[in-house]
Amino acid sequence: MPFPAPLTGVLPPVCTPLTPDREVDVPSLLRLVDHLVEGGVHALFVLGSSSEVAYLRDGQRRLVVESVVSHVGGQLPVLAGAIDVTTPRVLDHVDSVTAAGADAVVVTAPFYARTHPAEIARHFRLVAAASPVPVVAYDIPVAVHTKLPADLVLELAAGGVLAGLKDSSGDLAAFREVVTGARAHPGITGFSVLTGSELIVDAALALGADGAVPGLANVDPHGYVRLDRLGRAGDAVGARAEQERLCALFALVGVGDPARMGSSSSALGAFKAALHLRGVIDCPVTAEPQVRLSAEEVEGVRKHLAAAGLL
Amino acid sequence: MPFPAPLTGVLPPVCTPLTPDREVDVPSLLRLVDHLVEGGVHALFVLGSSSEVAYLRDGQRRLVVESVVSHVGGQLPVLAGAIDVTTPRVLDHVDSVTAAGADAVVVTAPFYARTHPAEIARHFRLVAAASPVPVVAYDIPVAVHTKLPADLVLELAAGGVLAGLKDSSGDLAAFREVVTGARAHPGITGFSVLTGSELIVDAALALGADGAVPGLANVDPHGYVRLDRLGRAGDAVGARAEQERLCALFALVGVGDPARMGSSSSALGAFKAALHLRGVIDCPVTAEPQVRLSAEEVEGVRKHLAAAGLL
Amino acid sequence: MPFPAPLTGVLPPVCTPLTPDREVDVPSLLRLVDHLVEGGVHALFVLGSSSEVAYLRDGQRRLVVESVVSHVGGQLPVLAGAIDVTTPRVLDHVDSVTAAGADAVVVTAPFYARTHPAEIARHFRLVAAASPVPVVAYDIPVAVHTKLPADLVLELAAGGVLAGLKDSSGDLAAFREVVTGARAHPGITGFSVLTGSELIVDAALALGADGAVPGLANVDPHGYVRLDRLGRAGDAVGARAEQERLCALFALVGVGDPARMGSSSSALGAFKAALHLRGVIDCPVTAEPQVRLSAEEVEGVRKHLAAAGLL
Amino acid sequence: MPFPAPLTGVLPPVCTPLTPDREVDVPSLLRLVDHLVEGGVHALFVLGSSSEVAYLRDGQRRLVVESVVSHVGGQLPVLAGAIDVTTPRVLDHVDSVTAAGADAVVVTAPFYARTHPAEIARHFRLVAAASPVPVVAYDIPVAVHTKLPADLVLELAAGGVLAGLKDSSGDLAAFREVVTGARAHPGITGFSVLTGSELIVDAALALGADGAVPGLANVDPHGYVRLDRLGRAGDAVGARAEQERLCALFALVGVGDPARMGSSSSALGAFKAALHLRGVIDCPVTAEPQVRLSAEEVEGVRKHLAAAGLL
Repeated sequence: MPFPAPLTGVLPPVCTPLTPDREVDVPSLLRLVDHLVEGGVHALFVLGSSSEVAYLRDGQRRLVVESVVSHVGGQLPVLAGAIDVTTPRVLDHVDSVTAAGADAVVVTAPFYARTHPAEIARHFRLVAAASPVPVVAYDIPVAVHTKLPADLVLELAAGGVLAGLKDSSGDLAAFREVVTGARAHPGITGFSVLTGSELIVDAALALGADGAVPGLANVDPHGYVRLDRLGRAGDAVGARAEQERLCALFALVGVGDPARMGSSSSALGAFKAALHLRGVIDCPVTAEPQVRLSAEEVEGVRKHLAAAGLL
Repeated sequence: MPFPAPLTGVLPPVCTPLTPDREVDVPSLLRLVDHLVEGGVHALFVLGSSSEVAYLRDGQRRLVVESVVSHVGGQLPVLAGAIDVTTPRVLDHVDSVTAAGADAVVVTAPFYARTHPAEIARHFRLVAAASPVPVVAYDIPVAVHTKLPADLVLELAAGGVLAGLKDSSGDLAAFREVVTGARAHPGITGFSVLTGSELIVDAALALGADGAVPGLANVDPHGYVRLDRLGRAGDAVGARAEQERLCALFALVGVGDPARMGSSSSALGAFKAALHLRGVIDCPVTAEPQVRLSAEEVEGVRKHLAAAGLL
Repeated sequence: MPFPAPLTGVLPPVCTPLTPDREVDVPSLLRLVDHLVEGGVHALFVLGSSSEVAYLRDGQRRLVVESVVSHVGGQLPVLAGAIDVTTPRVLDHVDSVTAAGADAVVVTAPFYARTHPAEIARHFRLVAAASPVPVVAYDIPVAVHTKLPADLVLELAAGGVLAGLKDSSGDLAAFREVVTGARAHPGITGFSVLTGSELIVDAALALGADGAVPGLANVDPHGYVRLDRLGRAGDAVGARAEQERLCALFALVGVGDPARMGSSSSALGAFKAALHLRGVIDCPVTAEPQVRLSAEEVEGVRKHLAAAGLL
Repeated sequence: MPFPAPLTGVLPPVCTPLTPDREVDVPSLLRLVDHLVEGGVHALFVLGSSSEVAYLRDGQRRLVVESVVSHVGGQLPVLAGAIDVTTPRVLDHVDSVTAAGADAVVVTAPFYARTHPAEIARHFRLVAAASPVPVVAYDIPVAVHTKLPADLVLELAAGGVLAGLKDSSGDLAAFREVVTGARAHPGITGFSVLTGSELIVDAALALGADGAVPGLANVDPHGYVRLDRLGRAGDAVGARAEQERLCALFALVGVGDPARMGSSSSALGAFKAALHLRGVIDCPVTAEPQVRLSAEEVEGVRKHLAAAGLL
């Protein structure tokens, strides 16, 4: 489908359900997509961080995109991450996910290799030149260890290189600089500024964001869709109440014992445990080398769901 | 060939010459291998950071290993990097490079994904369990943003998970902890402790390192082989003099203007410019999105080579 | 005066005007205080980062507190930073600024020394036990290189150790955790949650902040007081418009050439140049070793003031 | 006494014994000085990181310098840290410690405030211009969060601003750049390059360091003096053996439980426990807010001392 300009609303980064032997569980994935679509989300983002993209092999990535694109059949846009260390490798993923039908690609700055702003700009220009679909920049300093400067994003937006930004930096002041800069710039139209910070979506919408990419929307899409509607309607009080409810639910990401596992094992494990407890996916396993939640920790997830009225 | 236990000596991380359109230039690569072998190096490490592994597509990586393994024909061991973000993707590279004939694989901690020591340990155990050849851990915090703890390395060495360590952390005290810890541990035999810090190889050898993986050995293999021989023979004064000569030469990595490019563009560009000026490779181009050295900057490289008597 | 519980509204971190030979310019300081009070601010915070506290000698710090406290004569609360590396040295500053009349002290986590959450908690407990006035925690990771965890802040608030938090971390999600956590906790009353992020004050107020500590309020106190009034009245649209005007003005902190000076020289130099151009202070000099703005850079500040209608 | 140019040998950063109520225990301090002098050290460095300088109030700092200077009576040079956040505050410490008789001052780059290389250079120039005694730069990135660039150190050495460098960065390659750069520069004479990395003193001496500032020398001065003598005599094998013995002893810094305290509490607590167990100081207490070692952890220190033959 033609990519909306700008893309707005709730775009969950779709979790990737796995089988016990850690292959993509396509039936569960499609049930999850149905759960999200039924929840009213506006687009789907596959192969993002919450999708465990970093843990998926090339064939698994392709299978995810093909399955989801074919299942939604153009009802709503499907964005796909093309996440790898440098330009040539990203380009191979762009080829793969667009061949599989993605409506846009989501791309980070280079990582592992040491980078420079000039090299980051060159990277996005080369990717955009080669991509048959729009390119959304993915600003995720916790993963790639550089922050995309607001002026670079605006320069690339004005040059037609970028169609949007997904900002997972947590830095709302810098996010605002892109939102207001894009609005003020005569050469920028249809550029989507999306927040990846699921705990401050109300604030992002209030300052002019086009939408949100909340990992927690896998668990509670209805909540984020309500939040989006309230925020867009200018109901700040209602949006804040819904956001606070979601913030309380978000505490489930902390169930994992930090002496035993990292924050990714805990958060992605909790999302999947919640989807399993809600009956959406068959198996809550996460990819290697993540550590599995204990039965007690899963029980913690269940309590959070119950408190949020999601069981 | 059987992998030596321990592997000792000079193991250059072999640069990957590219054609002007950035495909692997196999004839130049093989001339570079001949240049290194003729220089007396003890093993070859392909697909490391100095090889621009982060910039090579899967097919290019495979071509590099196949070409080099087939060219050296078992004369000396070929280690290959299996560098990717997490265990499942690393395992695919392990399959690929071992199918292409690598004698050992070199593997970092997970990156991009947030990791935990327990997950790093699990990662190396899973990789070793699946690899048909020995696994060398690659400690490179500047790229992966975690430092491998010495006690974890020793635990994995004692458990037979790791066959060696390539330490590019620059932290000689931590390196020493592994060297002396491995020597003292009754359960560790044949474990190779290799430094990736090309400016302090004399110091690393003096405290008991088994060898070195110096990027600059692409440019001057004879120098590092002399340094290794002197260091091993206990000639501290001679080793220091040779090391200081190589340190002076190393200044060539700084020719690139930091306002215009990152340190990787400058250093890898300088290595390739030097190999081009010395007549070893046909084209000094580096992979995208690295920025190319200017003619003036290449002239800087030429001066450094001349000062070192390498032209 | 008794310290309000909670303290609310706009609390500018008062700049410290200096004479050309870098002594405290008391007449200019008092004119600046009058300018702020006339602008409607609700309290004054002296000896914060924008006050160049890190550059002031002990006698200068004392002189600032004495001068301001005596000048305002209890019209509004005066908070004073007690900023030093560890507990014993902070306690000496607490003695000094409270002897000089400060109504509350503002204290960071230890720095220089490597710290641990248990040591940070112990630090705040010891300071509070010894302080005759309430203690406000100052979370400024860019300076002290640790982030105060939200749960630690809430634990110390519940225990009566802390009377408030000034959050200059830029992390609005963590800030919200303190705001909602303090509201929900039965044992916490009168705790002030203040944002130090001058570019997202509207967002902070919308999610429940008690007030703001904006460095830019030195230059435009009326603007921040309007913003505070609009935000508190629930006029999200009006607050956002005022905030965006202030964000545009804030660009003046970037006038300094980054090749020639650090961001502190540029930002504090720009605040002082603006106060000088507006006729509030006599001399725009900053403390050593900060680099002075050039005439051209000061002209940049003038243009920003003119664009904001402040000349 | 006139400051040696260059200063060479072992310069322990002298621990500051405290009484149970955390005042400077002068008799214990002087016994510690005697213990070090008897051990053969070549100079004393008071008010360094191992001295808990960050935890000492101004009067305590002055008392330490006065007591030690008066006690050693010019037998060997006494260097004193003048550690504070920025130039004006450092200058006050320079006044204080030189009035108390220090033969040289040791000064870090500014911290807390964000700095720029131009501001760091300006800082050292201003300090040197005002100091009646030589200035030694203290490179300790773990505390101040910037690394002094080798070329800046050499420029300041050539300009007569700095008399030496104490490098606690752990980066031996950068250290070497200063050592060889200082030797090669026609404008630099008598400049002391000292390592603060107590685990690689043999390596530092082998590449040309003038001396070492090892915290562990408080516990075992004889060991470091032997190491220095062997290193200087070119006995690489003997120096390495002595260094390895000291590395094994150094493990005592890790006795503290990391769940309960930071690395500074553990290391400084262990040094003081060792001095107490060896009968040198009366009380092993460290300054607030550091956490005290448990009886069990002190027993761990005792075992390390016993294993090293120091009881």
